[in-house]
Amino acid sequence: MKHVEGGICAVRGVRANGIKQGKNGLALMVSDAKKLVTTGVFTRNKVIAAPLIITRENLKKKELKAIIANSGCANAFTGEKGIQDAKWMAGLLSTKLQCSPEEIGVASTGVIGRYLDRAWLSGHIDEVYDSLSGSKDASNACARAIMTTDTTMKEVAVELDNGVRIAGIAKGSGMIEPNMGTMLAFLFTDAALSRKALDASLKKAVDKSFNMVVVDGDTSTNDMALLTATVYRECYERTFLEGLDHVCISLSKMIARDGEGATRLIEARVSGAKTVKDARAAAKAIVRSPLVKTAIYGKDPNWGRVVAAAGYSGAEVDQDRISLKFSGNDKEAVLVDSGKIIEGKLDELKSLMESREIVIEVDIGLGENGATAWGCDLTYDYVKINAMYTT
Amino acid sequence: MKHVEGGICAVRGVRANGIKQGKNGLALMVSDAKKLVTTGVFTRNKVIAAPLIITRENLKKKELKAIIANSGCANAFTGEKGIQDAKWMAGLLSTKLQCSPEEIGVASTGVIGRYLDRAWLSGHIDEVYDSLSGSKDASNACARAIMTTDTTMKEVAVELDNGVRIAGIAKGSGMIEPNMGTMLAFLFTDAALSRKALDASLKKAVDKSFNMVVVDGDTSTNDMALLTATVYRECYERTFLEGLDHVCISLSKMIARDGEGATRLIEARVSGAKTVKDARAAAKAIVRSPLVKTAIYGKDPNWGRVVAAAGYSGAEVDQDRISLKFSGNDKEAVLVDSGKIIEGKLDELKSLMESREIVIEVDIGLGENGATAWGCDLTYDYVKINAMYTT
Repeated sequence: MKHVEGGICAVRGVRANGIKQGKNGLALMVSDAKKLVTTGVFTRNKVIAAPLIITRENLKKKELKAIIANSGCANAFTGEKGIQDAKWMAGLLSTKLQCSPEEIGVASTGVIGRYLDRAWLSGHIDEVYDSLSGSKDASNACARAIMTTDTTMKEVAVELDNGVRIAGIAKGSGMIEPNMGTMLAFLFTDAALSRKALDASLKKAVDKSFNMVVVDGDTSTNDMALLTATVYRECYERTFLEGLDHVCISLSKMIARDGEGATRLIEARVSGAKTVKDARAAAKAIVRSPLVKTAIYGKDPNWGRVVAAAGYSGAEVDQDRISLKFSGNDKEAVLVDSGKIIEGKLDELKSLMESREIVIEVDIGLGENGATAWGCDLTYDYVKINAMYTT
Repeated sequence: MKHVEGGICAVRGVRANGIKQGKNGLALMVSDAKKLVTTGVFTRNKVIAAPLIITRENLKKKELKAIIANSGCANAFTGEKGIQDAKWMAGLLSTKLQCSPEEIGVASTGVIGRYLDRAWLSGHIDEVYDSLSGSKDASNACARAIMTTDTTMKEVAVELDNGVRIAGIAKGSGMIEPNMGTMLAFLFTDAALSRKALDASLKKAVDKSFNMVVVDGDTSTNDMALLTATVYRECYERTFLEGLDHVCISLSKMIARDGEGATRLIEARVSGAKTVKDARAAAKAIVRSPLVKTAIYGKDPNWGRVVAAAGYSGAEVDQDRISLKFSGNDKEAVLVDSGKIIEGKLDELKSLMESREIVIEVDIGLGENGATAWGCDLTYDYVKINAMYTT
């Protein structure tokens, strides 16, 4: 596997473009291949946004030829009008492509409980559509168009050893604790896989990646990941899954690193759990804990908070078996060994906390199962960004 | 029911005292009545602190004649040495009282993963013990001695119409999402109730009060509520429960209002839920949401975040049935009526958000069950306090 240039346009058959003006953005992704297989995963929030309802329905009937996404308005909690607006968005692009609106995926991100700005979108569709292209810059423009409080564009493309390419763009910075999707991720591959294989691969990859990211613990109404295969190259499912895992985990780490106000990426690796569910619960509790997150921001060697988070996570835990290690900047500090506190390590811990990436390893000591979760520190800027988001 | 002066010493048979020096504190509470009935509830964190293990064991064998509590060190995640330290604390007080150490309750609050400072405690026990008294100031000193990042002392005492008194002190400001107890609450009554009635009353009251408070969503290793009855006055269990509810809810609101860095108390009232469990989950999700909490801090009328939190809470929710109202400063803003957005209310909402107490009412519209939860806003000062807690 190697990284390649070009973002989602590195995948054969994919054209893209986007525009961002102030809070509003419009992104288009069109797959031109003769045969397409597409699948998606959606938020489990019971308040689910209109574009997700429409896209989920469309996926049941058709393969998605193209995706239209806007930023600035989530079109969530907008009732029947929201549904009409989402269909209208699909129509905006299907008219151009001369296909059925049911062949369009629709995505939105932004403020909840506000109606779509149709005027802005219809005023910019021509401009974006007319410059659709398969260039690196086009993927870039598309990835930028879906950003909200994101400070970095999130894009990755790989080529597997068998020549298959897998690429994706994502956005997400706040309201991040995805549950079956991330804020928005659009994934493309030229692999030839059945819908069933594609479905299964996406679910598995998302469970290991986007579903293991926590910025603030708020699960969005608009989380969605869509995967389009342009069916140009044969590929073993197992080989494909390895590549897809890599792409999804890369995007997930970008989201965590770019968490609202974040200065540090936190990776929590839990091992020795009785079940995978336990390992996932403990890893996520650690990166979700406001006390762990603020301690890491302040470089405060308050490691007891990690143990407390594992303890309340719901995972089976025996405090006399836990081991704990922090690492960062190529240094490490072993703080607890099978329940025994290793004293005199606080200065080492404080010093490695200067690192921009902190790895926390917890061995629960009760079994063979592990999981990794990603998060970020909690800073003054998270409060600032979110105290003044809509105004 | 009326409020009375005197804190826990308002209850017949109770003497108290405490001292606070820098981060260290020592509090003593002694119940002198001939007959005592005592009960407690403890954190469900699987990493449970040593003093809780000891107190829970003691309660199985004896009634607790007295309580010794320290602040500054949680004596949590301290293994066998921690157990010995907690027993030593019990012995420190039982020697004075010439009773069994098994008749002593032990509580600790402070940094996790540090050993107890025996020298400081044995250096101050005489001073605190010798001035034990039944005065208002003594209850005060006791309540102050258990404070950590708390900025206000938390104390309440009521007299029921039948003359029974119920009083309590509590501490708690961060690492607050109690699960069967709060950081620390010590409750006293002169009511004559059986242990079974006392147990049942405490569990019910705690479920409606301390278990419905969220400051940051971190469940502590040291949460504990102890209730001592000095058995002087007959009391119907139902009457007693009403009084105990009031005392526990009052203390809970004090904890939420004094959440680390908080400027505002948030009360989330959920009604119309299919089950009580659903109502509780939705109410707690709202006061736990970092996005709701930062919006309230910034007076940002971003009400969609409340709906999103209800949606991911796990409660059964149908977005077309939800109604939403904010109130504060004797003003109210109805934002959603049975799924329909009431437009033009954002200025009203912004203006009432000036209030120091914000009430958020969500009617789920699916059933008859309700619950109320309390929390506070998330501010720069929460980050500041917790980024530099141990250093």
